[in-house]
Amino acid sequence: GFGKIETATDDIRTAIEDADVIMVVVPATGHRFIAERCAPFVTSDQVVVLNPGRTFGALEFMHVLRQQRVRGRPTIAETQTFIYVSRHTDFTRARIMQIKNSVPLAAIPAHRTPGVLDMVRTALPQFVAATNVLETSLDNIGAIFHPTLTILNAARIESTHGDFEYYLEGVSPAASKVMESADSERIALGTALGVHLHTAREWLYLAYASAGSTLYDAIQATPGYKGVRAPSTVAHRYIFEDVPMSLVPMVSVGRQLGVKTPTLTSLVNLASVMHEKDFFSEGRTVDKIGLGGKSVRDIRMIAVRGGLS
Amino acid sequence: GFGKIETATDDIRTAIEDADVIMVVVPATGHRFIAERCAPFVTSDQVVVLNPGRTFGALEFMHVLRQQRVRGRPTIAETQTFIYVSRHTDFTRARIMQIKNSVPLAAIPAHRTPGVLDMVRTALPQFVAATNVLETSLDNIGAIFHPTLTILNAARIESTHGDFEYYLEGVSPAASKVMESADSERIALGTALGVHLHTAREWLYLAYASAGSTLYDAIQATPGYKGVRAPSTVAHRYIFEDVPMSLVPMVSVGRQLGVKTPTLTSLVNLASVMHEKDFFSEGRTVDKIGLGGKSVRDIRMIAVRGGLS
Repeated sequence: GFGKIETATDDIRTAIEDADVIMVVVPATGHRFIAERCAPFVTSDQVVVLNPGRTFGALEFMHVLRQQRVRGRPTIAETQTFIYVSRHTDFTRARIMQIKNSVPLAAIPAHRTPGVLDMVRTALPQFVAATNVLETSLDNIGAIFHPTLTILNAARIESTHGDFEYYLEGVSPAASKVMESADSERIALGTALGVHLHTAREWLYLAYASAGSTLYDAIQATPGYKGVRAPSTVAHRYIFEDVPMSLVPMVSVGRQLGVKTPTLTSLVNLASVMHEKDFFSEGRTVDKIGLGGKSVRDIRMIAVRGGLS
Repeated sequence: GFGKIETATDDIRTAIEDADVIMVVVPATGHRFIAERCAPFVTSDQVVVLNPGRTFGALEFMHVLRQQRVRGRPTIAETQTFIYVSRHTDFTRARIMQIKNSVPLAAIPAHRTPGVLDMVRTALPQFVAATNVLETSLDNIGAIFHPTLTILNAARIESTHGDFEYYLEGVSPAASKVMESADSERIALGTALGVHLHTAREWLYLAYASAGSTLYDAIQATPGYKGVRAPSTVAHRYIFEDVPMSLVPMVSVGRQLGVKTPTLTSLVNLASVMHEKDFFSEGRTVDKIGLGGKSVRDIRMIAVRGGLS
């Protein structure tokens, strides 16, 4: 459909003044920047929705506001994934291929999730309630699929410029074992933090009704993956966004809680080497979102209630 | 040329009795087995040559003999790489494509290296003296090239059954950065143990006269790599031998000496996940070769002199 845009501006104050809901639709690497710019102007009766938050986006946004010691205490929410399957086609256009049927959303504090949903569902009825932002943050299947596939097909991406079937050829039995191992580490983090997550295989079944006794079989049985080509370069958001903003926070919280993440750590290491970056230091670590040194109980208090009692 | 085989036997005693030199030409995963079988029969005036030793093969062989408390104390030597470029073509035949010009060899104790060379060079003049077995063990370029390339091309190997140029397509700029990082960790281990090693790039220049400002450029400039196809499966000695018998001992000695090996560790992790094995526990660790807990000085005393004073 079509809608009239009331205001287009690069002035953050104008953009957010008098808005009921501020929806932030940027790569997760931009969340901190947006939070810093919004901080002086946001009010306590506003709602900020990160669409999506990747891993711990809402927690980082809240932490930045509090660090700036501003008076506004908006409700911060995040979605588990982006609501659109879309690509930008040139600098001024985007193409929406699909609107997802159902996208979980959670607010901090979690008891405000229903209120946020009431506001945003007038425009976007696809949003549904998640338990809390730990669930939306960790039920991040893209974080498991994207970097693993890009790293394990790096040479093929570079020597063919992405001219192969990303899922149907890029996911082989060996590659899918790495994805399953990374996924099981993600599930273990959820267990440690008291949230029930979906495995990648369950998610494929829920999203695409594709079943299989292994992740490899389930991916090969997903017709929607047919025709999806690989990215043409390894300098892609599948690395630059998913590694620092999803894998790094997972590894970081795992280290703190004593949950072993050798596969996720190995993927971060190899991505760092391939891109000559230290994603561990660039990425979203527990220290950068105010969770450094906190216990499971305290992390849950912050994520679910918005702070320590 | 041709030569008459005096004895072919599966009886180890018959095989080694009265031999001056016992040359062990098996995958490194078999060194322990051979050492255990030889132990009751080897004598102190015999020479055992592991051709090649991979990483710390001679040290493992010596340690197994000593654990068995046998009287024979043969001189154990190892070569830095296999003297032949060869492939078996069926169960009873092998094809030697090339005999390498120069292959370093070192004995334990190191002062016996010239004596061993005198004996073996009557048949194989290609062997030259290395400083000691730490050098032959760590100057192992195959350990850097083989697992990295196999892991970073795992999906391509499985989806094409190896139908691509292993070096010229399998080594892309990103893959070569991982190889360079793994290689720099290997060099750091050599520095910690007091042996000067060749970088992979130096080795390419020495072996093939191929130069380049990066490892990627040097590999692409190596005509000998043209036509080398990838293995048809990831279930290959490039993983099953090189990971447990070369990368694991490197990571293991690095942990003991405080030399960081995140890239080598990541490669072992991913190989373990892909093959549903724990290569760290299966592989040649410092504990299994009698170096567990030993200082740099003690490791050098054992490797260079054959024991602690």
